[in-house]
Amino acid sequence: MRIGAYGEVMMRLTPPEYRTLEQTHSLRMDFTGTGVNLLGNLAHFGLDTKLLTQVPDNRLGDTAKANLQTYGIQTSFVGKRHNHIGSYFAEVGYGARPTYVTYQNRHNSSFGVSGPDTYALHDFLAQVDLVHICGISLSLTEATWQTALALAQAAKAQQVAVCFDFNFRPSLNDAADRAKLKERYKTILPYSDIVFGSTRDLAELLDYRKVFPDETDDQLIQSFMDVYDIKWFCGTKRLAVADQQFITGKIITKEAAYETDAQLLQVLDRIGAGDAYAAGILYGYANHWSIEKTATFAINNAVLAHTMLGDVCLTTVEQVEQVMHAPGTDLIR
Amino acid sequence: MRIGAYGEVMMRLTPPEYRTLEQTHSLRMDFTGTGVNLLGNLAHFGLDTKLLTQVPDNRLGDTAKANLQTYGIQTSFVGKRHNHIGSYFAEVGYGARPTYVTYQNRHNSSFGVSGPDTYALHDFLAQVDLVHICGISLSLTEATWQTALALAQAAKAQQVAVCFDFNFRPSLNDAADRAKLKERYKTILPYSDIVFGSTRDLAELLDYRKVFPDETDDQLIQSFMDVYDIKWFCGTKRLAVADQQFITGKIITKEAAYETDAQLLQVLDRIGAGDAYAAGILYGYANHWSIEKTATFAINNAVLAHTMLGDVCLTTVEQVEQVMHAPGTDLIR
Amino acid sequence: MRIGAYGEVMMRLTPPEYRTLEQTHSLRMDFTGTGVNLLGNLAHFGLDTKLLTQVPDNRLGDTAKANLQTYGIQTSFVGKRHNHIGSYFAEVGYGARPTYVTYQNRHNSSFGVSGPDTYALHDFLAQVDLVHICGISLSLTEATWQTALALAQAAKAQQVAVCFDFNFRPSLNDAADRAKLKERYKTILPYSDIVFGSTRDLAELLDYRKVFPDETDDQLIQSFMDVYDIKWFCGTKRLAVADQQFITGKIITKEAAYETDAQLLQVLDRIGAGDAYAAGILYGYANHWSIEKTATFAINNAVLAHTMLGDVCLTTVEQVEQVMHAPGTDLIR
Amino acid sequence: MRIGAYGEVMMRLTPPEYRTLEQTHSLRMDFTGTGVNLLGNLAHFGLDTKLLTQVPDNRLGDTAKANLQTYGIQTSFVGKRHNHIGSYFAEVGYGARPTYVTYQNRHNSSFGVSGPDTYALHDFLAQVDLVHICGISLSLTEATWQTALALAQAAKAQQVAVCFDFNFRPSLNDAADRAKLKERYKTILPYSDIVFGSTRDLAELLDYRKVFPDETDDQLIQSFMDVYDIKWFCGTKRLAVADQQFITGKIITKEAAYETDAQLLQVLDRIGAGDAYAAGILYGYANHWSIEKTATFAINNAVLAHTMLGDVCLTTVEQVEQVMHAPGTDLIR
Amino acid sequence: MRIGAYGEVMMRLTPPEYRTLEQTHSLRMDFTGTGVNLLGNLAHFGLDTKLLTQVPDNRLGDTAKANLQTYGIQTSFVGKRHNHIGSYFAEVGYGARPTYVTYQNRHNSSFGVSGPDTYALHDFLAQVDLVHICGISLSLTEATWQTALALAQAAKAQQVAVCFDFNFRPSLNDAADRAKLKERYKTILPYSDIVFGSTRDLAELLDYRKVFPDETDDQLIQSFMDVYDIKWFCGTKRLAVADQQFITGKIITKEAAYETDAQLLQVLDRIGAGDAYAAGILYGYANHWSIEKTATFAINNAVLAHTMLGDVCLTTVEQVEQVMHAPGTDLIR
Amino acid sequence: MRIGAYGEVMMRLTPPEYRTLEQTHSLRMDFTGTGVNLLGNLAHFGLDTKLLTQVPDNRLGDTAKANLQTYGIQTSFVGKRHNHIGSYFAEVGYGARPTYVTYQNRHNSSFGVSGPDTYALHDFLAQVDLVHICGISLSLTEATWQTALALAQAAKAQQVAVCFDFNFRPSLNDAADRAKLKERYKTILPYSDIVFGSTRDLAELLDYRKVFPDETDDQLIQSFMDVYDIKWFCGTKRLAVADQQFITGKIITKEAAYETDAQLLQVLDRIGAGDAYAAGILYGYANHWSIEKTATFAINNAVLAHTMLGDVCLTTVEQVEQVMHAPGTDLIR
Repeated sequence: MRIGAYGEVMMRLTPPEYRTLEQTHSLRMDFTGTGVNLLGNLAHFGLDTKLLTQVPDNRLGDTAKANLQTYGIQTSFVGKRHNHIGSYFAEVGYGARPTYVTYQNRHNSSFGVSGPDTYALHDFLAQVDLVHICGISLSLTEATWQTALALAQAAKAQQVAVCFDFNFRPSLNDAADRAKLKERYKTILPYSDIVFGSTRDLAELLDYRKVFPDETDDQLIQSFMDVYDIKWFCGTKRLAVADQQFITGKIITKEAAYETDAQLLQVLDRIGAGDAYAAGILYGYANHWSIEKTATFAINNAVLAHTMLGDVCLTTVEQVEQVMHAPGTDLIR
Repeated sequence: MRIGAYGEVMMRLTPPEYRTLEQTHSLRMDFTGTGVNLLGNLAHFGLDTKLLTQVPDNRLGDTAKANLQTYGIQTSFVGKRHNHIGSYFAEVGYGARPTYVTYQNRHNSSFGVSGPDTYALHDFLAQVDLVHICGISLSLTEATWQTALALAQAAKAQQVAVCFDFNFRPSLNDAADRAKLKERYKTILPYSDIVFGSTRDLAELLDYRKVFPDETDDQLIQSFMDVYDIKWFCGTKRLAVADQQFITGKIITKEAAYETDAQLLQVLDRIGAGDAYAAGILYGYANHWSIEKTATFAINNAVLAHTMLGDVCLTTVEQVEQVMHAPGTDLIR
Repeated sequence: MRIGAYGEVMMRLTPPEYRTLEQTHSLRMDFTGTGVNLLGNLAHFGLDTKLLTQVPDNRLGDTAKANLQTYGIQTSFVGKRHNHIGSYFAEVGYGARPTYVTYQNRHNSSFGVSGPDTYALHDFLAQVDLVHICGISLSLTEATWQTALALAQAAKAQQVAVCFDFNFRPSLNDAADRAKLKERYKTILPYSDIVFGSTRDLAELLDYRKVFPDETDDQLIQSFMDVYDIKWFCGTKRLAVADQQFITGKIITKEAAYETDAQLLQVLDRIGAGDAYAAGILYGYANHWSIEKTATFAINNAVLAHTMLGDVCLTTVEQVEQVMHAPGTDLIR
Repeated sequence: MRIGAYGEVMMRLTPPEYRTLEQTHSLRMDFTGTGVNLLGNLAHFGLDTKLLTQVPDNRLGDTAKANLQTYGIQTSFVGKRHNHIGSYFAEVGYGARPTYVTYQNRHNSSFGVSGPDTYALHDFLAQVDLVHICGISLSLTEATWQTALALAQAAKAQQVAVCFDFNFRPSLNDAADRAKLKERYKTILPYSDIVFGSTRDLAELLDYRKVFPDETDDQLIQSFMDVYDIKWFCGTKRLAVADQQFITGKIITKEAAYETDAQLLQVLDRIGAGDAYAAGILYGYANHWSIEKTATFAINNAVLAHTMLGDVCLTTVEQVEQVMHAPGTDLIR
Repeated sequence: MRIGAYGEVMMRLTPPEYRTLEQTHSLRMDFTGTGVNLLGNLAHFGLDTKLLTQVPDNRLGDTAKANLQTYGIQTSFVGKRHNHIGSYFAEVGYGARPTYVTYQNRHNSSFGVSGPDTYALHDFLAQVDLVHICGISLSLTEATWQTALALAQAAKAQQVAVCFDFNFRPSLNDAADRAKLKERYKTILPYSDIVFGSTRDLAELLDYRKVFPDETDDQLIQSFMDVYDIKWFCGTKRLAVADQQFITGKIITKEAAYETDAQLLQVLDRIGAGDAYAAGILYGYANHWSIEKTATFAINNAVLAHTMLGDVCLTTVEQVEQVMHAPGTDLIR
Repeated sequence: MRIGAYGEVMMRLTPPEYRTLEQTHSLRMDFTGTGVNLLGNLAHFGLDTKLLTQVPDNRLGDTAKANLQTYGIQTSFVGKRHNHIGSYFAEVGYGARPTYVTYQNRHNSSFGVSGPDTYALHDFLAQVDLVHICGISLSLTEATWQTALALAQAAKAQQVAVCFDFNFRPSLNDAADRAKLKERYKTILPYSDIVFGSTRDLAELLDYRKVFPDETDDQLIQSFMDVYDIKWFCGTKRLAVADQQFITGKIITKEAAYETDAQLLQVLDRIGAGDAYAAGILYGYANHWSIEKTATFAINNAVLAHTMLGDVCLTTVEQVEQVMHAPGTDLIR
């Protein structure tokens, strides 16, 4: 299965060794973003992957493209326009000290200012079987919203499956924004086959409320899936027990639901783990696996993503299966 | 409140990645010392801070000053004389392997050989509201002892509050030294308003013994405080449970005492955490906080200090409060 | 003499070892800008220096301030607003390969969007004897132009000397911009005492043409100086002989002119050398040196600036004089 | 024009900062080889490039592929077999100290042990317009010789142009080897359209001798070209004048010859410059440029290759043209 | 006691910071091998140590020797022949992600191709009191097997004690190999005084089965020891409890057996810990310690080995004893 | 020939990339000193070398010893006492900017406080054929002067050749010191066979003046050699022509003199080049080469020393001869 994604490429700058920005002159430069993270992982799973985006028409754009290619992502639909790329600085935490992310100007980036007319949507869709759209496009700029919508509509028309990721961050939106966002989410959801989200998204953004006193979360989600004719609804949950963290993954179809066992997390780099879960899900979906097998594969991939530096999880299928089948192995030679 | 400190600036040299000195040619250079650590943290809390010290009159002195300024410490009372700076090498431990500190010649340093006549004590005190003096000055050299005493006396005269830190390390002193030290501690304590120490210090250095069989530690300390008219007596305690480490902080006044809950420690760099506790205490004192609020703030700051590389804890008030109010958060964006 | 400057703080990101961005994941982070470079050097010459600027109200702003303090620049007039800092990437060249600079979005930076009402101009000027204004402020945004002008006018009113640097880059401006710029330059020049520029600036920006066939460059400049009542006009010239590069420095007063001998350049880092020349000039001016002594000091400082990595030249007066008096020395111990 | 190449991928391991292996624990890992260098540069010139090779079926093979993709080389014909990759260590020289290369076992590499049956030669050739074959394949192993020959023959049959690079290193071959090699070179040359070599190669390997006393080098080469029906014969020459090094490039056709002016070399990394010259030649050839324009472009590219670390020259067409049209520029912004 | 060892020197190449090979261009180079690890640690314990091996006769051999000397190993019996050294790449794992080792060609190494005639066995044995032979020599090549056997036989003849380490890795051998290996192990065991191994080795390689239903593991091993007249049989066992790992060490003599308490493992680098246990055992043996004291010392050394980066454990006797006598100490100064 | 040396081991700390101390937190740690530099190079030439010195009895001493062993120096006469090692910081210059060395406290080092009774002089001399003594020992402390003298006298008695290096630095000594030094030099010279020095040393330290108006430098030196019965007097001279530096080497015997051609210097690291010249001289002397051959070898070694980072020149005989016989080669493979 050939997978496409529409999303922003960002530059991530990270001080080494858990240091803060004040403590160092040295930064690690990587290129990330939901689409990048997802496709980079799927390329390592052996799938054909293509990113639809815009990067600056300068040395930073050249460098971004070279980095995407390293991950195995095809860049024939990566355009070069304007001269700004969104960036963020990640001061990696330790123990009680949280990881601290500082964003630099995303709205004026080459990606942020590029609307649907700057992309060859039809050609792109002709070369993929499933396309991933990140919800951040709906709130970033008018141009990215228009592009996301045009892409979803064209995908439907060209019979390309659509995977939509809520990626809704309440803290980033005020009430007025939220009303506008709600409309946009409701506009794009009918074109979606697979959705990544949570009951919190349904409640806080779409105002879903339980109708019957004993309605379960799963039933609530399934009623949402009915409205928009969604096939798979997927998400993860984090739990803290004492000073340990655990994670579970879930897939819900219209008829069934499966939640994995809780897995212990040992965290080297927190960022990008959700995208690794999504990559696992899409890999199972592409291979027509059961939801049980898919969710188990995906959650193990997410656990591994926490153990790798950088946003992009570079696991292979063999590595995920090794951890599934022989957990606790600490040395392979 | 404007805070001053009298103390040594040392060069810390640290191999990277938990390596030993034999395993590397690469060292990280930082500038530290009790006064530096304390003032650097307080400057990040937004206070006006000034260090009273001497550094070499050469490139090392220039570099030391530049580093102090990075922390936000004012250097107008940092003199430049002679040509040696005390240094230490920290081989950072891991698990069962302890961190190993090797000191290089501190007695002949610019700081060690400089007596009270080399400082403008009066001018310095005119620009601060509280001055911190580290007990190491009492044992380092005759010159540093004379300076510490002259400073404490002048502070009293100029109505500047004095904060004195025992910093007594039994292993570094033989019996004869200890007798001399005891006299010095007893000489300087009457000038002190706030004291950092422990019952062990009172017992081993000042020969304090409980008088009544059921006298509590707090009562013992309060009787000591009465003798020297000390307002706040502050310290921390470390506990090990299984393979986990915990810390509590305490403040004792003549009438009351407060000890914080035990906090789990996850240790990235062990050195300097005591100074972070002191910085938290002085910040609460400067803001006329209650001892409960002050100790809680200080112990959280000490916990964070264990998660930052280097001796100098660079937390802001917002960061400490974030951890106090939302512990367990592992990603902020 | 106390020196102030109004100018942008930028983040410079540099790959190590002459590498290109594609060849590395590692970047060196520094904070620079004409004002930063100038004041950082003057602080190393022993002068009191203050920067007037705005940095982001986030971790990047904190880090920028810490870096300014390292250089010895006072930051009490460095405000914190908004969340973006201009940045540039420098791929350092070697031999035939030029150094390649890529700018990222400067117009939306905290500095770029801040007008005169965001600064305490009067208080700032009360604490300096001379203020430096960089011509880039005139073309960056309307807000920076308004700030530059208000500052120059207030300086005149408060009898603070003004040093203005043309810093005009023809390639960055189209014809319409150039007309607007010309007006702005003509508006601010009457407030200027010292000007850094070149005959090319006068010709290309202000349309100065020689009136008499044998009018010299110096006479042309002096007639320009008469119009705006400028005391010192200063600049450098670069010459290439075979594969070697040389530089000369010049100072013109209304009555005299002095040009230094050509000095061989050996270039480790090309960026910031012009600011080092300016620092040398202002140091001579502050000390009431002759133009001969001043230009010689300044050009030697500029030569040294080419041998130091980073934009900010960190030479001391002793180092410059050492090179002036014992050129060719290659080891000092 | 779509360019293919058959050649080995090697791991290059380089100590930093001109250090020797004994002086460091740190190595830079890159992936190189004549084909890699050539295609990586041509990809940066905007051409479609594909490598035909074998890498190990393990983590080193994965890493090699990721690195090729970074350069923009397509890897669909990069097979994965066995478990060894040839490697070399480069201790970079300085001044009088030469760069010192130490090879590790190339004969047993995945590439070395793979014969023509392990490649889809026909499919590969169907996707390229010109294929480059490196002479090292003729001496490495029997398997690589058989592959090179089969590829050249199939290319002829499929009307794909063949570019053959002598790459003959006399010091690596004894007399017996040389006789065998001579036969191999004579067997493959008839299939070649473009040849990279020198009169020394013709003399030492193929025993070409001048027939007439005043026969020029060019005439000798042209008589060789007649025998094998070669279109372009290309090479470079190095000259030392005092302590400076210069380089010239030459292209000879059956009717004409052009040699460029000598260009000054400033050398940061000596290795791979010949491949950059070849890339420039093939780019001119692909664009049907004149030999004058082609050789000038190629020699400027070779000069730039000396100024970039690593074997693979990553110049773009714009960068080469910038140096051709404005030599001496040392800063672009 | 003077200790010798016969074994391969390998180059270990490790990406920094838990990164994978794809994520970095930077590798740490170390020189390791069972014999190197063992002797390097024993040299730090103060013993006289000598390695018998062959390294390449090129810059890699020079570098390998320099590294052995750093550890304190004497290199007068380290020969230089041929040009290849075995190497391996270690991608260090974290949490659920295992450490992943990739070997490069060991059979063609200078060590692998060198038989007994290339060594001065007699002279070597004349300078040691005990010689260590690693079981890997028995499976690597015919030449290394012949050397190992000749050395064991000569040791017996020269009354030098022999320590033999099974180091049997079932996954590396197919059935035919295993039969050949079994013969080799049975051939060399009669010359051995101390053996490192496990009941799994006895069962899987030598087909030992319990004779009586209630025969204990210890009895099985003792019956094996009787056959070959072995004095000490030593090994470690790993246990996982929840997400924590523990280790115990055991020594069995013909009459007695001692197993240590389980020790908690905190793992920074997993590789080489077994060799550290062996070093501890040999140190106790050399000092005629009891098996209780020896095993306790050895297991503490093994625990420390897990906390040090690199294969070679560089602990001193003082450091091991410090951890034995004051476990939990986290800072020494 | 077996070579010994008596001299200080110092820690050298160097910022990377030509940076100043203020610009970095990263330092390279190396261990150097005249004796170390000399013996390290001679060990690479294949000679048996031993250092007589004292290092601290702590982790720094351990590390110093490990580093000496890396160079191939035998450390059986390296004692461990006290706790301080002399150190220096080298800010490496570029072009017009000189390398700047800052020393830290050498007088209180383990070496500085150790007199002749702390060494086994007799045993040491029994194991060497020639011993090198550095003149710095004469001015460092009374203890080092006493040791140097005792060693020279014992060498004479045990018929071990003595090589004495003036290493006189006028700037480090005032007039009173100089008088004392003069006596010490005159005391030790009679025990010396080979001397490294210059006419400047004879003039400034020993007050040698030409007696006859046309007396040559060589004659002056030979009359000095007569007085003290010195066999070889050796030194180098530096010349600057335009912006290039050259070096020549000279050996004078009682009957003859030879000065090499001037060699162009390209300088990567200036420090330690004199010691490389001395190593070359002693290697020629040990092999009974002619003074012509010896001086040529030594000066080429000194040229190479300028191209290697660090004080210790690690050239092999083959590398020096390669440069002598094929100068200008820039790539060896």
